[in-house]
Amino acid sequence: MWKYHNPVRIRFGWNVLDELPAILAGREVVLVTFPEAARAGLESRLGALLGPKLRHTIRDIEPNPEVAWFRARYSEFWKSHGGATIVAVGGGSVIDTAKLLMTSTAAATFDDLFAALAAGRQPEVAKASALIAVPTTAGTGSEVTPWATLWDRSSDAPRKYSLHVEETWPGEAVVDPALALSAPQSVTRNSALDALSHSLESIWNVNSNPISDALAVEAARGVIETLPALLASPRDEPLRTAMSRSSLMAGLAFSNTRTALAHSISYEMTLKHGLPHGLACSFPLPFVWELAAGADAARDAVLSRVFGANEAKPWRRLAAFLEDVGVATRFEAYGVGPEEARAMVAYALQGARGRNFVNRKIMRLAIYICTDINKSFNISNSCKFKYV
Amino acid sequence: MWKYHNPVRIRFGWNVLDELPAILAGREVVLVTFPEAARAGLESRLGALLGPKLRHTIRDIEPNPEVAWFRARYSEFWKSHGGATIVAVGGGSVIDTAKLLMTSTAAATFDDLFAALAAGRQPEVAKASALIAVPTTAGTGSEVTPWATLWDRSSDAPRKYSLHVEETWPGEAVVDPALALSAPQSVTRNSALDALSHSLESIWNVNSNPISDALAVEAARGVIETLPALLASPRDEPLRTAMSRSSLMAGLAFSNTRTALAHSISYEMTLKHGLPHGLACSFPLPFVWELAAGADAARDAVLSRVFGANEAKPWRRLAAFLEDVGVATRFEAYGVGPEEARAMVAYALQGARGRNFVNRKIMRLAIYICTDINKSFNISNSCKFKYV
Repeated sequence: MWKYHNPVRIRFGWNVLDELPAILAGREVVLVTFPEAARAGLESRLGALLGPKLRHTIRDIEPNPEVAWFRARYSEFWKSHGGATIVAVGGGSVIDTAKLLMTSTAAATFDDLFAALAAGRQPEVAKASALIAVPTTAGTGSEVTPWATLWDRSSDAPRKYSLHVEETWPGEAVVDPALALSAPQSVTRNSALDALSHSLESIWNVNSNPISDALAVEAARGVIETLPALLASPRDEPLRTAMSRSSLMAGLAFSNTRTALAHSISYEMTLKHGLPHGLACSFPLPFVWELAAGADAARDAVLSRVFGANEAKPWRRLAAFLEDVGVATRFEAYGVGPEEARAMVAYALQGARGRNFVNRKIMRLAIYICTDINKSFNISNSCKFKYV
Repeated sequence: MWKYHNPVRIRFGWNVLDELPAILAGREVVLVTFPEAARAGLESRLGALLGPKLRHTIRDIEPNPEVAWFRARYSEFWKSHGGATIVAVGGGSVIDTAKLLMTSTAAATFDDLFAALAAGRQPEVAKASALIAVPTTAGTGSEVTPWATLWDRSSDAPRKYSLHVEETWPGEAVVDPALALSAPQSVTRNSALDALSHSLESIWNVNSNPISDALAVEAARGVIETLPALLASPRDEPLRTAMSRSSLMAGLAFSNTRTALAHSISYEMTLKHGLPHGLACSFPLPFVWELAAGADAARDAVLSRVFGANEAKPWRRLAAFLEDVGVATRFEAYGVGPEEARAMVAYALQGARGRNFVNRKIMRLAIYICTDINKSFNISNSCKFKYV
């Protein structure tokens, strides 16, 4: 038995941002955006588009939303703007921030919301603002998922929390590839790699289904075909459009499967080694693909469509692709030695996303750490096993 | 600019029907089903599943819902059962009937609803019942679209009407391939061909988009790979599952594009020559594919994925496939001579679905009728042109 459900209304196109007033149809708006939107002229363009219906702008969003940030702003937001529609214009952190802000328990305090997450539960949502998500990067997929990631680095043991309730599906996703034109090269690359990771992780996933598979294969092929050319011609309209389309399709795919082992590894790499998310969740992809191979014939068949059925070891092609766009695929390139990598993967396999990984045998039989994934994929020569 | 939106919650699996009570969570139910459901034991199974929450059953549904049927039943339904959830268990006609029943204007009379459709408008919906759609055939796609087809044969000029409002999206689609086991071979075949038509018609469509394309290619390949084997082994679980999956994916694809020229032709063939829908909308597919070829390079590229890029004239492969499953692909096989076929296609091109067809040139330059589609696709030898 499998399920699929994604209620987001998607609009996609070059300069489709201009349709915001028609979509809003007179509703009052709180704009949530990133600090650089002012400098890039985006905030003034949004101001002109939204006119007097724009009652407030929140622009001090930082990468990876933090508990402390919400403690300082959440109550004021609900007191002053609880009824307004949120228009979130930015990358994954902006859209995730909007999803956390828009969600209210009966008490309407952030401590109440956070208490549930901290206890490993989802909050009981009493009311929620409407959300229109407008991504300015091509990668996060947050415009078509109901989830938000929240980080707490205030304690000795930094932690990651995930809000996932029905109320935080964006009502509308307005995907305008032109908005990614102002992104620095590193953001373009890391966002694209995040999308690649979403697509592959939705395939080697216990929650995979025929709909997510069809979208994920298209998305993975699209990122791999487009990214090198886009990095060479970052202002090219067809390439930007192709990348935004791939990111959106990857988002739709993993909106119903969630992610898997590579993302579970990435959380540790981000918390402990400060890696940007797109890099952290993509460098282990060849390693994870090799772990996935052979676990399930149906999964192997879907994965084989990414590079074609003639590729016996597609993870090698993927590693070469990643190295070509400047991503080292070995743990040690990030200062993580074999022992730490082994421990990290063992921990990641037991996390919520790690448990989505299709190779369950790996949990029972071995934690296998390949520390030299780039040079050789010959397990007996270059990888270590540890029975757990 | 393109859009995609499909809010239906999909559950798919062998015997997933058994989850109905969990989905309903105690809601009161009106069951809409087909007369043969009683004989096949399906109605008693549903009775046992739904228990005392089942307050009423409507079972006298006939193929192609008729105006007269609703005139006799609609007011009574709303008076007695207006608040209940409709569970529609059947083929396209059953699910379409449920969508028409569930929709109410402020006056809550069928005449009021029909007056809007007859005037070429959509009704203003004041209230709507919730709908759970459970297809018993693999082909209609009605479980994931908001549309219903209504036929009026009472007047001298029989007509087809289409209800399409936001309120008639099914809340849930429960797709259980096991329910198609009791279908006669002709229903299995014609339903599958309907799904094939949905998938191809969503590709050669002015409303096509990357999401519908990805799903449609999978669906078309699935029907073509599965149907001959399924007709030979109609009780095979994997084949039934594959066909239901293809039908569902075709439904998702055309839920956002609607159909095109082949369906526009089919309405005339059904009204004037009594052809079953699945046959009527599939026999013209090779002819329509040849008309589509060359009109748009992006459409040609997507279509080429159905049989692979090495197939220069894929419509010939499709014609051979159809003939193999017993479908004649020439108009004259259905008693429609060249003159009538020409007139019918000219009329169909101007219909609402005909105007979705990607080759707009055909409207401006020529009505081209190939009356000998099976024997030869050489236009200059076997087809006639008429400039309009």
